[in-house]
Amino acid sequence: MMTKPKRIALLGSTGSIGRQTLDVVRRFPDHFQVVALAARSNISLLAEQVREFNPSVVACFADTPELQQRVREILPGAMLGEQGLLAVSTHADVDVLVAATSGLMGLRPTLAAIGAGKTIALANKETLVMAGHMVMQAAHRANVPVLPIDSEHSAIWQCLRGEKNSDIHRLLLTASGGPFRHATLEQLENVSVEQALAHPTWRMGEKITIDSATLMNKGLEVLESYWLFGVPYDQIEVVVHPESIIHSMVEFIDGSIKMQASLPSMHIPIMNALAYPDRLDIADTGFIRELRWADVASLHFEALDIARFPCFRLAIEAGKRGGTYPCALLGADEEAVALFLAGKIGFLDIARLIEAVLERHQSVEQPDVATTLEACAWARRTARELSEKLM
Amino acid sequence: MMTKPKRIALLGSTGSIGRQTLDVVRRFPDHFQVVALAARSNISLLAEQVREFNPSVVACFADTPELQQRVREILPGAMLGEQGLLAVSTHADVDVLVAATSGLMGLRPTLAAIGAGKTIALANKETLVMAGHMVMQAAHRANVPVLPIDSEHSAIWQCLRGEKNSDIHRLLLTASGGPFRHATLEQLENVSVEQALAHPTWRMGEKITIDSATLMNKGLEVLESYWLFGVPYDQIEVVVHPESIIHSMVEFIDGSIKMQASLPSMHIPIMNALAYPDRLDIADTGFIRELRWADVASLHFEALDIARFPCFRLAIEAGKRGGTYPCALLGADEEAVALFLAGKIGFLDIARLIEAVLERHQSVEQPDVATTLEACAWARRTARELSEKLM
Repeated sequence: MMTKPKRIALLGSTGSIGRQTLDVVRRFPDHFQVVALAARSNISLLAEQVREFNPSVVACFADTPELQQRVREILPGAMLGEQGLLAVSTHADVDVLVAATSGLMGLRPTLAAIGAGKTIALANKETLVMAGHMVMQAAHRANVPVLPIDSEHSAIWQCLRGEKNSDIHRLLLTASGGPFRHATLEQLENVSVEQALAHPTWRMGEKITIDSATLMNKGLEVLESYWLFGVPYDQIEVVVHPESIIHSMVEFIDGSIKMQASLPSMHIPIMNALAYPDRLDIADTGFIRELRWADVASLHFEALDIARFPCFRLAIEAGKRGGTYPCALLGADEEAVALFLAGKIGFLDIARLIEAVLERHQSVEQPDVATTLEACAWARRTARELSEKLM
Repeated sequence: MMTKPKRIALLGSTGSIGRQTLDVVRRFPDHFQVVALAARSNISLLAEQVREFNPSVVACFADTPELQQRVREILPGAMLGEQGLLAVSTHADVDVLVAATSGLMGLRPTLAAIGAGKTIALANKETLVMAGHMVMQAAHRANVPVLPIDSEHSAIWQCLRGEKNSDIHRLLLTASGGPFRHATLEQLENVSVEQALAHPTWRMGEKITIDSATLMNKGLEVLESYWLFGVPYDQIEVVVHPESIIHSMVEFIDGSIKMQASLPSMHIPIMNALAYPDRLDIADTGFIRELRWADVASLHFEALDIARFPCFRLAIEAGKRGGTYPCALLGADEEAVALFLAGKIGFLDIARLIEAVLERHQSVEQPDVATTLEACAWARRTARELSEKLM
């Protein structure tokens, strides 16, 4: 059945999704081959990965002179900066780009990979949130599939296999609800950094864990769904499902609902995107536990209380407004979360700061890449300034 | 999008599935046209349906002289007996046969319709249980799709859209568990007919309601799944899910699980089979309630306790043994349920009687239609005789 292995470029190889992507490659060496690796700053882990997978091209973003010096010492063959990321994502031997960087760094390399005809396996939320119009248009023009790695979008995508998008009545994204599902507004005001970092079901990086606690992350997923599946905002809903077993649902026009489930594991969405249109047999890999329904016993569902999670509302509003509002949202959120993690603002101040930034934003319609990144940068600066003035 | 309406022959038009099939046709008159109707014995309802849908051919099985006389009076154009059912199922204008009779009556007409190249929408369990090898072989040879109407099989079929059967790890049929989910063996011994007829989630005919209470029905569904999806018995499991919201699941080789859900409604599986490969928009039909997950609140799952539901075990054993064992199972069950409904045997005697019949059965491999029906008839006779001797 297999002809030759799919050749993978991996942007963000030392992050959570990057490491799990390499787990999958390691388990299925006949199916996949790593030909290009890039990371931001974890040079020692990147060096280990280079020794194990022996890629043709290696890059490290390394955005300080100290980091660049260390790269030259430890990985003398590695390319630096955005130039390096672009070389990784467009390398001639690459079939699939796994875009697993966090933040804004992934945008230009992803667009370049699409231009070079690479299939995109997308784990980076920001790319679609700030530049969905560019990415999807470019992908459409180049006839390149954009396959989701996020568990919610992978669920929807799997439910849509063999279905027509015109038959969608609504998308139902599930949300664990985060650690503060039942917290009052008063309790939320006094949340500590440690409490916010203790996500009940998923282990992830710090930024995305805080975004999950504020439900900003769920809001961004709604924006991603809008771009990935072409479904209007009023047909995308969120339901709280604390067990994170059902990863999302599609309700069709005939009243039938399809859902995708598994124990919380990112290996499954990663395998889905990498192996598509095939599925890989996990027998004997040992790395995914089987879901025993009698042990699961019960699954719960609750409405999302938007009043306690203003970041969710801000994200949807920014998505509906369009233009550079989502870029401003992302920039403001990056800065606000950093300020919260540094102990400089409170948990609910994250939303207050973002809202204050959005109120001051001058949106630009149909922004290009430079305008997009500038809107993010403006929002970060403005958030920082406002936090000093207001808080 | 629509070209011309699908032309439907409906076997069993006055039963629960038959009436709901006509609901669907009534709601979507541009999509479907009833060209042939057949019922067993509810002549007055059949006559009403004939007035409303004006089919080209009508049949009534009418297995007594009195019934035949009434048919001649009320529906003078109707054909009688199996000849009538065959005329309905093979009528030249028919695109899709909806096989919604209960019991053994559907086998010959279904095989004849397959031979005549009609698509089969199958709601009759017995057809596949007793003659799965004939039906699926004939359908394969004639390149005719056999589409399930049962909610569990429709769920699995929907989950398999766009998927490869070779990627199935296991099928998980959900079972409401029936009214006696938590009854002890002592309580089961003393179940009354009224208690057994009070199914918690589905309104159905008497025979299938008792089969649901004994879980014979779930066992028969496992046998159906074996034939419909070509999945070995050790990859078909049952999990108790009392809310009947999730209608069944497919677990794939990569650990991903797809499930189909809706409020309990047979309209959805009927629409799915009739409209395939399209989906019909139920907006403004008003006959299916929307599922509100926050109102659902929780879904439960339990292991099936086979010790308390011996009919389930007997069905699976008969399926695994093959030959005419499933026919003997069906015949013995028909008789045992009739005896229970008549107050002549107890609830747990149903399984005892079936087991005693199966122990005496001389199975024939690869039976033809006559052998199949004879095995059923033998089992009914034997069950009756044994009930008089043993009980």
